[in-house]
Amino acid sequence: MTDDLPNRVREVLDGRWAPLRQAARDKLDDRFVTVPGETGEQARERISRLVRQIPAEVGVAAGFPAEFGGAGDPGGSMVATETLAQVDLSLMVKAGVQWGLFGGAVFSLGTRRHHEAWLPGIISGDVMGCFAMTETGHGSDVQRLRTTAVYDPASQSFDLHTPYQGARKDYIGNAARDGRMAVVFAQLVVGERRHGVHAFLVPIRDEDGRPLPGVTIGDAGAKAGLLGVDNGRISFDHVRVDREMLLDRYGQVAPDGTYTSSIENDTRRFFTMLGTLVRGRVSVGGSASAAAKNALTIAVRYGETRRQFTAPDSDREVVLNDYLAHRRKLLTALARSYAYTFAQERLVRDLSDALTAGEVDDRRQRELESRAAGLKAMQTWNATRTIQMCREACGGAGYLAENRLPGLKADTDVFTTFEGDNTVLLQLVGKGLLTGYRDAFGSLDGWGKAAFAAEQVREMVLERTAARTLITRLVDAVPKRGDASVGLTERGWHLNMFEEREKHLLEGAVRRLRRGAETKRDRPFDIFNDVQDHVLEAAQAHVHRIVLEAFVAGIEETTDPAAKQLLEKVCDLYALSTIEADKGWFLEHERLTPARAKAVTGAVNDLLNELRPRMTTLVDAFGIPDAWLHAAILREEPGRQAEM
Amino acid sequence: MTDDLPNRVREVLDGRWAPLRQAARDKLDDRFVTVPGETGEQARERISRLVRQIPAEVGVAAGFPAEFGGAGDPGGSMVATETLAQVDLSLMVKAGVQWGLFGGAVFSLGTRRHHEAWLPGIISGDVMGCFAMTETGHGSDVQRLRTTAVYDPASQSFDLHTPYQGARKDYIGNAARDGRMAVVFAQLVVGERRHGVHAFLVPIRDEDGRPLPGVTIGDAGAKAGLLGVDNGRISFDHVRVDREMLLDRYGQVAPDGTYTSSIENDTRRFFTMLGTLVRGRVSVGGSASAAAKNALTIAVRYGETRRQFTAPDSDREVVLNDYLAHRRKLLTALARSYAYTFAQERLVRDLSDALTAGEVDDRRQRELESRAAGLKAMQTWNATRTIQMCREACGGAGYLAENRLPGLKADTDVFTTFEGDNTVLLQLVGKGLLTGYRDAFGSLDGWGKAAFAAEQVREMVLERTAARTLITRLVDAVPKRGDASVGLTERGWHLNMFEEREKHLLEGAVRRLRRGAETKRDRPFDIFNDVQDHVLEAAQAHVHRIVLEAFVAGIEETTDPAAKQLLEKVCDLYALSTIEADKGWFLEHERLTPARAKAVTGAVNDLLNELRPRMTTLVDAFGIPDAWLHAAILREEPGRQAEM
Repeated sequence: MTDDLPNRVREVLDGRWAPLRQAARDKLDDRFVTVPGETGEQARERISRLVRQIPAEVGVAAGFPAEFGGAGDPGGSMVATETLAQVDLSLMVKAGVQWGLFGGAVFSLGTRRHHEAWLPGIISGDVMGCFAMTETGHGSDVQRLRTTAVYDPASQSFDLHTPYQGARKDYIGNAARDGRMAVVFAQLVVGERRHGVHAFLVPIRDEDGRPLPGVTIGDAGAKAGLLGVDNGRISFDHVRVDREMLLDRYGQVAPDGTYTSSIENDTRRFFTMLGTLVRGRVSVGGSASAAAKNALTIAVRYGETRRQFTAPDSDREVVLNDYLAHRRKLLTALARSYAYTFAQERLVRDLSDALTAGEVDDRRQRELESRAAGLKAMQTWNATRTIQMCREACGGAGYLAENRLPGLKADTDVFTTFEGDNTVLLQLVGKGLLTGYRDAFGSLDGWGKAAFAAEQVREMVLERTAARTLITRLVDAVPKRGDASVGLTERGWHLNMFEEREKHLLEGAVRRLRRGAETKRDRPFDIFNDVQDHVLEAAQAHVHRIVLEAFVAGIEETTDPAAKQLLEKVCDLYALSTIEADKGWFLEHERLTPARAKAVTGAVNDLLNELRPRMTTLVDAFGIPDAWLHAAILREEPGRQAEM
Repeated sequence: MTDDLPNRVREVLDGRWAPLRQAARDKLDDRFVTVPGETGEQARERISRLVRQIPAEVGVAAGFPAEFGGAGDPGGSMVATETLAQVDLSLMVKAGVQWGLFGGAVFSLGTRRHHEAWLPGIISGDVMGCFAMTETGHGSDVQRLRTTAVYDPASQSFDLHTPYQGARKDYIGNAARDGRMAVVFAQLVVGERRHGVHAFLVPIRDEDGRPLPGVTIGDAGAKAGLLGVDNGRISFDHVRVDREMLLDRYGQVAPDGTYTSSIENDTRRFFTMLGTLVRGRVSVGGSASAAAKNALTIAVRYGETRRQFTAPDSDREVVLNDYLAHRRKLLTALARSYAYTFAQERLVRDLSDALTAGEVDDRRQRELESRAAGLKAMQTWNATRTIQMCREACGGAGYLAENRLPGLKADTDVFTTFEGDNTVLLQLVGKGLLTGYRDAFGSLDGWGKAAFAAEQVREMVLERTAARTLITRLVDAVPKRGDASVGLTERGWHLNMFEEREKHLLEGAVRRLRRGAETKRDRPFDIFNDVQDHVLEAAQAHVHRIVLEAFVAGIEETTDPAAKQLLEKVCDLYALSTIEADKGWFLEHERLTPARAKAVTGAVNDLLNELRPRMTTLVDAFGIPDAWLHAAILREEPGRQAEM
């Protein structure tokens, strides 16, 4: 191993969008970095100003076509969001609302005339906007939201209305202060017919920033974090919206009120519309992991200098990273962080390729949506857990705003909720697995019907998502249920364990659902609900598998031998610590013997010793500029902690 | 079951200090309740004012003797802290610093002359003070702190000095704004001899609030939470402290510099001094659990009205608490909350009895200290986890400050660190178990020596802490390793499982330490460090056992049959969900067969169904006044969430 190992590993982690990541490191200077201890008003003012100053090289608008001012690089815009997340999470969310959600909706759900009229202003930041989907009464179940848009052929306009308080748009970013326009999701009604949820581009403020007639805007008030984001509440009192402002890519209303759509089924059309917005979910998952990397870098570097208690053989105090319990927390989290980095890079690549290729088939589209949902849920939970652990690992210093961790924690906390509640998302993944991707649209309408559709665990469900040939070869190289004789660091054994767990959990869920469908005919809700925990477990096992596969594929692509060698060790730790954490399941299902389970814990501890000298290498390889870390404990003069 | 069941359960939970708890509910009105969204300055001003207005009936100063203005009721003062934690956590911490840490140190470490001179002013709040122990460079390892107090016989005073920046007092509550005095911990030096850490009562500000000459006071700045607490940093530049201001209960300096103490060994003296401060740790653990009850009450009540998605057999949307996954999260957390309530009540009772009885024997004292440390660690981690879960269970609403959860989360976050870092505390518990209580003082000096002292797992280590006769009878009633034939809700089986796990973990740790002592003679640090995770696991198993025992004892004391019946179910859920969560261990050590492990999960789900109708009963029984919950989502007009 050589001294430039951090750089060589960084090159691997930077992946396909390395130049963009480097541009962000170069261009996002001190000015953009989060300011701890601000009041809400100060934070909003600062972020509102800075969001318009983000250098073009960072790529927040890269996803739009070049003709309107973008770069035709949707993957680039997702990567740009991740880099912003390491600088200031309010800035990332504010940019995500403007260019991802609001601009993305106009682009994906609108047609040529909307693009020409609005995209240049959206891209430049002259037209700030909101993504007004969530309502106070309906967050996860957006298909049942209550705002109405009733078409009036006489005036050729829609009557946009909030029928009662529970139907007001809530938690909407950019609403309380900056938004001039909003993409509003509402139930489209023409005459007697309801056509389901559609999106409308609606002006909400005049040029002086005053709400337009009929539009009431409130402030969501103080939040746990993201102080720089002006979340608000919007209600409409019979607001007239011009017919042209329907974003009509998937459903059109003619002047006389005739409704047309290329997708006949309302539910399917709605989920097709949502599917075009999958990028937001990808960005949130990636940003959560990116923020967790800041926390890990701070905690590992602090743990390398902070000393506590003397060793029995010396008067010298011991650095925190030398303690087994400390190392166990930090290194297993680092291994997860590496695993998610590869899974996220692969997801962004695959999604980007699909988007730039134009049409993709339904099956591919649904696989990407499911992967985005699963990785969003698991990455955001992992970030919450990791940042909390890092906060505690820094002791009292971790509680001070000047050391960044409180901000990382408070700001990312809502990531487990927004862009889809994690439990609901994992349930989507689980249902998708159960019913096969082909039936997924039919099962997305609630919590019950899947039970009836789940005939079998489809072959395709366990389809490998990355490096298929290699992974098949690795898995085939070890005996099934290979115990004792198979080395604990055999990658094929890890892959096989992850795969077996997913398969068995799915089969078990299907069996229970089938039994329930026979015995609980009078209680249809209970059929699925009684198996909910099982289905969620299967979904998690699925995500664990695709993450491991991405890690394996990422190592396979690595050409630098030293980097590759280190990554193999980190992958060992990821796989074994994941198996260890769920050893209850593996033992219960006799995929591990008690003796081998104990050996797994021993192997994890051996890896923690082996990787001890590489802890700082692993965080240095994240390549986060010191200015972005912004933690006082890392800037201390050496004497402050010195011994007498 | 009857309609007044919540009240009947509440009477059980309120325990011995029920009248004090009721007085707090009556006296701590709206005025005292936390204000979300304040700036740091506003919060400090409000809390500084309110802390002096806490009605005497609440009992924050109850622990002091009646002759100085207290009530001679140390248990009452700990209960008072818990009630304040449900009202405003900054207020609780500020009160804890003033009457618990600062006042407690003057009382416990000082002698008659200090009591007479200072306690009346401390109790009335006229003399606000700090507890200046932690230094920037030394938090957990306080025995090695670096502030010095060098005695000068000529002037009959101590020269108090901060030799370098790492030795400044840090994170000190009451320092940045309100403190006039401080109990300062410093290395006492007389002539050539160092006598270890002693406490000095030191004026730090004049009557106008200006730092006194030689005293430098900084502000710790913005924090994650506890905005109302003015944490600061204090340095001393050769400050002269009168000889009389040494708090000299355990060590005295005569005018000529002669040092005397009833405890010869410096280390032992220091830990005796710390031992008198165990109350603070007890209060922090209890307060963490109390705050988690606010969060649970909010999440359960919200989950009972919030609807999401329709059931397949109806147009009616389903309330969140009906979903298995939601119920699983909330009800298992409720069961833990109940278990800790009984464990905390018993700890407060036992400690209070010991304190009011005067002298207790060393063994009893160490058992209480260990129990306080273990319950502090486990309750604060549980609170962090529970409040986080409740935040997520309330979705986006849980992220808004107006719904209280962000404050509960941010304010309690540091509880896992202050009054002893949780990992360090659990290690103390583990080392205490390993070496037997008699040897504990010898093993508290670092991270290594225990290995040599750990000869055997002492009989006394597994001594039952509550309801000995009953528990012995219950355990003896089931066959050891009773599998299959023994009912899953047999309490004796639960107790036996918890006990076996603790015993086996301890025995295993001792075995590994012994082996290490033979093979790693040249690496003494590694002997203990290589087993650190094992020792921490044993300590957790120990706390789980004493918590279950306290729960069982608490039910035994319950006379109301309906309350008792409900508590038995909750105890079943606590025991079984704890076994389920650690089923990996039980399977690995063949205390569970795979079939029985699956049956445990089935039994947990059955209990979740049985307890579903009692979810609100269980939170109502916490008896938290609506004003203390202070969550907008619980105050909504019913129409807001209504369906059309």
